[in-house]
Amino acid sequence: MEKIDFTVETLGPCKIESPIPLKKNMDEAHASFVNDNERVLYDIIYHEGSKDNRVDYVKNNLMEKAGPRKQIYFQPNHVHAGIITCGGLCPGLNDVIRAIVRSLWNEYGVRRITGIRYGYQGLDPNNNLPFKELNPEIVDEIHTKGGTILGSSRGGPSIETRVDTIERLNLNMLFVIGGDGTQHGALYIAEEIKRRGLKISIIGVPKTIDNDINYMQKSFGFETAVAEAVNAVYAAHTEAKGAIDGIGLVKVMGRESGFIAAHTALATNDANFVLVPEVKFELEGPNGLLAAIDTRLENKFHAVILVAEGAGQDLLESSTDTDASGNKKLGDIGPFLAAKIIEHRKKIGKPANLKYIDPSYMIRAAAATPNDSLYCSRLGTNAVHAAMAGKTKILISMWNYHLVHVPIELAISERKVLDPKGPLWRDVLSTTRMPLSMTNN
Amino acid sequence: MEKIDFTVETLGPCKIESPIPLKKNMDEAHASFVNDNERVLYDIIYHEGSKDNRVDYVKNNLMEKAGPRKQIYFQPNHVHAGIITCGGLCPGLNDVIRAIVRSLWNEYGVRRITGIRYGYQGLDPNNNLPFKELNPEIVDEIHTKGGTILGSSRGGPSIETRVDTIERLNLNMLFVIGGDGTQHGALYIAEEIKRRGLKISIIGVPKTIDNDINYMQKSFGFETAVAEAVNAVYAAHTEAKGAIDGIGLVKVMGRESGFIAAHTALATNDANFVLVPEVKFELEGPNGLLAAIDTRLENKFHAVILVAEGAGQDLLESSTDTDASGNKKLGDIGPFLAAKIIEHRKKIGKPANLKYIDPSYMIRAAAATPNDSLYCSRLGTNAVHAAMAGKTKILISMWNYHLVHVPIELAISERKVLDPKGPLWRDVLSTTRMPLSMTNN
Amino acid sequence: MEKIDFTVETLGPCKIESPIPLKKNMDEAHASFVNDNERVLYDIIYHEGSKDNRVDYVKNNLMEKAGPRKQIYFQPNHVHAGIITCGGLCPGLNDVIRAIVRSLWNEYGVRRITGIRYGYQGLDPNNNLPFKELNPEIVDEIHTKGGTILGSSRGGPSIETRVDTIERLNLNMLFVIGGDGTQHGALYIAEEIKRRGLKISIIGVPKTIDNDINYMQKSFGFETAVAEAVNAVYAAHTEAKGAIDGIGLVKVMGRESGFIAAHTALATNDANFVLVPEVKFELEGPNGLLAAIDTRLENKFHAVILVAEGAGQDLLESSTDTDASGNKKLGDIGPFLAAKIIEHRKKIGKPANLKYIDPSYMIRAAAATPNDSLYCSRLGTNAVHAAMAGKTKILISMWNYHLVHVPIELAISERKVLDPKGPLWRDVLSTTRMPLSMTNN
Amino acid sequence: MEKIDFTVETLGPCKIESPIPLKKNMDEAHASFVNDNERVLYDIIYHEGSKDNRVDYVKNNLMEKAGPRKQIYFQPNHVHAGIITCGGLCPGLNDVIRAIVRSLWNEYGVRRITGIRYGYQGLDPNNNLPFKELNPEIVDEIHTKGGTILGSSRGGPSIETRVDTIERLNLNMLFVIGGDGTQHGALYIAEEIKRRGLKISIIGVPKTIDNDINYMQKSFGFETAVAEAVNAVYAAHTEAKGAIDGIGLVKVMGRESGFIAAHTALATNDANFVLVPEVKFELEGPNGLLAAIDTRLENKFHAVILVAEGAGQDLLESSTDTDASGNKKLGDIGPFLAAKIIEHRKKIGKPANLKYIDPSYMIRAAAATPNDSLYCSRLGTNAVHAAMAGKTKILISMWNYHLVHVPIELAISERKVLDPKGPLWRDVLSTTRMPLSMTNN
Repeated sequence: MEKIDFTVETLGPCKIESPIPLKKNMDEAHASFVNDNERVLYDIIYHEGSKDNRVDYVKNNLMEKAGPRKQIYFQPNHVHAGIITCGGLCPGLNDVIRAIVRSLWNEYGVRRITGIRYGYQGLDPNNNLPFKELNPEIVDEIHTKGGTILGSSRGGPSIETRVDTIERLNLNMLFVIGGDGTQHGALYIAEEIKRRGLKISIIGVPKTIDNDINYMQKSFGFETAVAEAVNAVYAAHTEAKGAIDGIGLVKVMGRESGFIAAHTALATNDANFVLVPEVKFELEGPNGLLAAIDTRLENKFHAVILVAEGAGQDLLESSTDTDASGNKKLGDIGPFLAAKIIEHRKKIGKPANLKYIDPSYMIRAAAATPNDSLYCSRLGTNAVHAAMAGKTKILISMWNYHLVHVPIELAISERKVLDPKGPLWRDVLSTTRMPLSMTNN
Repeated sequence: MEKIDFTVETLGPCKIESPIPLKKNMDEAHASFVNDNERVLYDIIYHEGSKDNRVDYVKNNLMEKAGPRKQIYFQPNHVHAGIITCGGLCPGLNDVIRAIVRSLWNEYGVRRITGIRYGYQGLDPNNNLPFKELNPEIVDEIHTKGGTILGSSRGGPSIETRVDTIERLNLNMLFVIGGDGTQHGALYIAEEIKRRGLKISIIGVPKTIDNDINYMQKSFGFETAVAEAVNAVYAAHTEAKGAIDGIGLVKVMGRESGFIAAHTALATNDANFVLVPEVKFELEGPNGLLAAIDTRLENKFHAVILVAEGAGQDLLESSTDTDASGNKKLGDIGPFLAAKIIEHRKKIGKPANLKYIDPSYMIRAAAATPNDSLYCSRLGTNAVHAAMAGKTKILISMWNYHLVHVPIELAISERKVLDPKGPLWRDVLSTTRMPLSMTNN
Repeated sequence: MEKIDFTVETLGPCKIESPIPLKKNMDEAHASFVNDNERVLYDIIYHEGSKDNRVDYVKNNLMEKAGPRKQIYFQPNHVHAGIITCGGLCPGLNDVIRAIVRSLWNEYGVRRITGIRYGYQGLDPNNNLPFKELNPEIVDEIHTKGGTILGSSRGGPSIETRVDTIERLNLNMLFVIGGDGTQHGALYIAEEIKRRGLKISIIGVPKTIDNDINYMQKSFGFETAVAEAVNAVYAAHTEAKGAIDGIGLVKVMGRESGFIAAHTALATNDANFVLVPEVKFELEGPNGLLAAIDTRLENKFHAVILVAEGAGQDLLESSTDTDASGNKKLGDIGPFLAAKIIEHRKKIGKPANLKYIDPSYMIRAAAATPNDSLYCSRLGTNAVHAAMAGKTKILISMWNYHLVHVPIELAISERKVLDPKGPLWRDVLSTTRMPLSMTNN
Repeated sequence: MEKIDFTVETLGPCKIESPIPLKKNMDEAHASFVNDNERVLYDIIYHEGSKDNRVDYVKNNLMEKAGPRKQIYFQPNHVHAGIITCGGLCPGLNDVIRAIVRSLWNEYGVRRITGIRYGYQGLDPNNNLPFKELNPEIVDEIHTKGGTILGSSRGGPSIETRVDTIERLNLNMLFVIGGDGTQHGALYIAEEIKRRGLKISIIGVPKTIDNDINYMQKSFGFETAVAEAVNAVYAAHTEAKGAIDGIGLVKVMGRESGFIAAHTALATNDANFVLVPEVKFELEGPNGLLAAIDTRLENKFHAVILVAEGAGQDLLESSTDTDASGNKKLGDIGPFLAAKIIEHRKKIGKPANLKYIDPSYMIRAAAATPNDSLYCSRLGTNAVHAAMAGKTKILISMWNYHLVHVPIELAISERKVLDPKGPLWRDVLSTTRMPLSMTNN
């Protein structure tokens, strides 16, 4: 196994005593702070009897543990912290904002916290977007709402302009809550900051409703998304069973990774076909989806199909070619499949009672479930601990049940995808009893 | 005021003692049965000082009260009852089925209850759809599920074929759960039954998620539909607030009546524009919706639009004309409005962050809320009382807080619509603060 | 039938044009305002063929319709309005507060709205409770929360002190949201106001989670309470079925009226025994509850009992006598029944797997369901219309599907109770199949 | 670090080809089966720079991975499987039953599956409890219900009697879903089976709503329990804020471990005091809870206390001593604290508006949340894989994000408790801002 570089960059040595009063007796309290030399093993599967050099194995696989440090880098009462949310909505955004504000204010005594409005657009002076001062009272109940109180957007001004604004605001730390593209931006900002010789910590909290960020086993909002998607599948199942040869088709998020679809299928067991970007499928022919749906309807009189938005992109391309229309709407797998299935059913002289459900915006805008809320709360709190200790260019992540620091550069190097040979997909195949012949993998 | 004919048809005189043991002492029990001469006043608004002849007023306005009769028409142990559900799904269908089965079985001792599968299609022998025997155990927990355990469909065989099947099954009573079209069918079936000299009671339970059946103040499933629509509006509101000049657009059911839209608007207060079939609106021009949205965005930076599917049909027609494509999909007001708004915003050089949500199938397939469940339970029970007393060609309805019998013919004579001069729409205008200049009424 | 006096008191003639712009054309708008001579019939059941003098019947039964008047009493920009919430929590309190504030501000242009803190206690200067200024922004999202943002309490200072404070605040109108005791207080306040020759409108919005206020068919929060109680009954049912001879016992609110218990039973159909204050039951003996539970367990192996807090008070008194302890806790029917049932089951050598659930505070503190929210919204809005028109000493109520004005004095003259001979209780008996022999009525 | 013995016992060599068709090409499929030599590291925290012998570290810390084996022990069409649920209700029981039945039937083709009724009591012939045949149709929708379709109980007949019944039923495998005591029983049963030379696999699925079983990071039902507890805390918070100096007190499960309380506190952030069995607290005195509540009320006017049922047991004992009544009810920390707080508040002449909520049965009886449902589904499926491969005396567990086999003996050796020096409790202290002086740890 190659060595993965989990080394975390810091702004400088930590010389200030943390104000966190962890325990009455200092000797006991010591146990609760985290030392920089505490590491979490990354790859923890071991093949007994194999000839790996286990010492190297362990040494090459160490992630820095998150948590409060006894010595911190920033003087709390000098700190001005910024928070920004970017990209599409995701359950839990307000929970993370709230946790960051509460931890800064209550644990460290920071009193200047500024919310940037509407993502990176809020760093563009031309947009004239006002900043929003934050404190525990303002964020007190925001976790009961979906969305983000700061607003969000895609894109933004040049990296230079962003850093200019950060400098002008005199921020010491910026918490960047966003997905892959956003964290790329955060990395460039951090590099520009370094170039200018500034001491500003850039801490990312990865936001991906698709759960597709690398070196992070579960992203916040993902569980809530699955819980909401379950409702859509129940509706599709109910509609399918309510009609002669009824077909329910649900499209869920998942541009490059089928995690939402797979988890939703396992949580409901109502989906008979699960289509994800990682596993190609055929539409026509004896091994195709259409034939499999026919078989299912003959035996069970109803069928439910759950498709991730990134699935079947090869089918869309080829059909675009033959169609020669260049119609962007054909790029949408949901309506494409719906049309194909209805066309096919009509062609063979069978009922085509298909109901198509796209719950995407209702999923994105949901408030976090309690378990997700708790997770957001811990991610936000630990992001603050990292920033106060002068860490930078890292994401707060969870790996093997531990909160860790992951270098942004590493995390955004490639997407996390579902392993078609792994236990999750195996359980999906088992649950759906989808014909294996349908897939090419 | 003209006389409305609420006269209820019966199969014959009631000579059999009801098996319902209402109270220990018969003299007390008497109070709990309902007499045929108990009536509910239909129109109960009175203008004091007006010169109406109030005696006529009262006499012309009497609806027959629903409830168990002390003397019934059918011998319970001879009865074979049928239940059928038709048309689109609606919350509460299973609750009504369950209440009918439980009342027949537990209160009257009826032991032959047959569910017809997939609506009137189930009465067509060519479809080979098996019947489903029903009893309290089978229906015990079906009320926790959306949809209908019997399945549903639109259309069906000829009236003669339907009655042939009813005769062959030897049914004494048929409970028809369905909307306007379905009840038309029920009426024709009842007429054909009479023509053949059969003694079969046809009792309708009106199902209209749009709440648009006449002489019925609230249809079952309607409250649940509003509760689900509220979720979609919250999501739209969250998305709208999360983006620069964000616009949320939600389409809800309501082909000819805007009740769902109006109630949803009052329950959330998050919708800024409510568009219903009963109130025309302009799209373009200074009094048009587009200009009103611009104004709203300038002042409040986000806007939420709630549109009933039947709203703005005049706009769609004219645009169809100019488009000359005859594309049925253009008949859909949701995507039409979405496209128009985006086009307009781009034209004036403003952001066009519109999120469109169509929650229709998730609304239809929802399980009934407790209050709706209770209502279904009472409708079903009283449908059984009516059938056992030999009533026919009626719907079970609620009017002025009382369960009543309404002749099917009367109920389907025209749709119930929202009164643009009444208190409901007035409260919607007050809540949304929608510019009055926008509407033509 | 005796004449019921529904006459509404007013502060004086209405000479000011309402600022509500109901429609574009004034002739049309006229239709939407409500005239004082529009009445709603109170008793609308008619026995055809009876010899009542129907003209008298109609004349004696007229309730004033609620709604906006074209001419109002108060000059909106002079108005200072107060809002107060008293007594136990109830779902929808925040919704009513919100609707009042929004209607005053948005429809009438009132700009001074003061919230009294913690009920009548907030009118006692000795308590030093600050007042809370209200406006649409403050109340924007409060309807998503249970409880009351104003706080509540029981009791308060003398009527004179209350009116002193009202005078000192210079209020023109006070909206009193509370139950029976609170409305008694409101009436005394209104009388003291009249005695002092002040022109202050006192408008009540009846709050009773038990739904036991007279001349009001459904109180706000009641539906939500039933929906929450349903959860408790499901849990009891699940626990009961999960154990050998399992018994689930749920206590719900209902001091003098069993409406919550009855509605909950009809919404779930899981309760086998429903005990309400209006219907006495025996505990011991062959017709007693204990014997009935034994029979149920022998046949069905589990039983669910739903008891309103006011049920079986006669049993508690007698047991207090024999106990001679004066222990207040024995006054609680829930634990009393639980102990009696366990004792009895042990005595006859049978399992005593009883699970007792008291969900009262979780019910009270719930946020209103969408349908309840809508209802609160309309009650609040119409309370404002009444106050602006100078009405006083009235409650806003709903009767026969219309919002009406009911004199406070009339409403508090006695409690509304469930009619043991009426259709609601009949349907409960039918659903539960509770042995009639158990009850004494 | 001492070596932990994770060795798994098996009934014999696996010589039968698994019928699971994992992939089209066998070489690819191979990747999806799990080999017995695939292990998951147990302790994955590494202190960089420490002098541990890392090779020993790895070798001493290996858990066997769960999953389907390519070679299995039992001939599927000969298998008769039993399922049993014991102890208190817990969300997800039906989900686990369903997953076991579906995996046995659909993946392995097992056709004889028997549900034992009411826990170990169902193995006592004297109880005459009928067995329940299970198949995919019966379990199709049971996951939407709380509780267990098999029923449950505590205790049971002698180990010999249990094994006699298992022999008489001719079971080849028994799935035991239950907590600590139940798994003790399972171990004794497995040992007696071995003594008799039988080849019966005993596989446990650990059920502990308290999440207190060792070597299992998260037990099923735990997340649902937290989600339900959150509702109770919201209610307590609402009640507390609604009254002058209002106090909300919620008791949740947690006999020996405070996980539910801690997670609930982090998910809501509404609890100001969290009391758990692992952290002693004082009641009286300047560092006591009562003084801390007074301070909180002085500053914030309301307080919410969340107490695990096992917290403060030392206080109860001492008070029992002084009370000399031996009253078992005093052993209940909830009412004890409620009484103490009210008494104290009265003594110092302050309001004592305390609302006490015990949601325990509503939590236990809830249906699993989607994420929990998914987890149950995977636990059940992997229990089947283990049994088919002839594993025995093990629990299916999740550790470091991987499903693993844990010897029952190891798991029940001691309880898992919350670490008062660990990150979870630290985050609770940070969130609640509970005075550290209050605790003795």
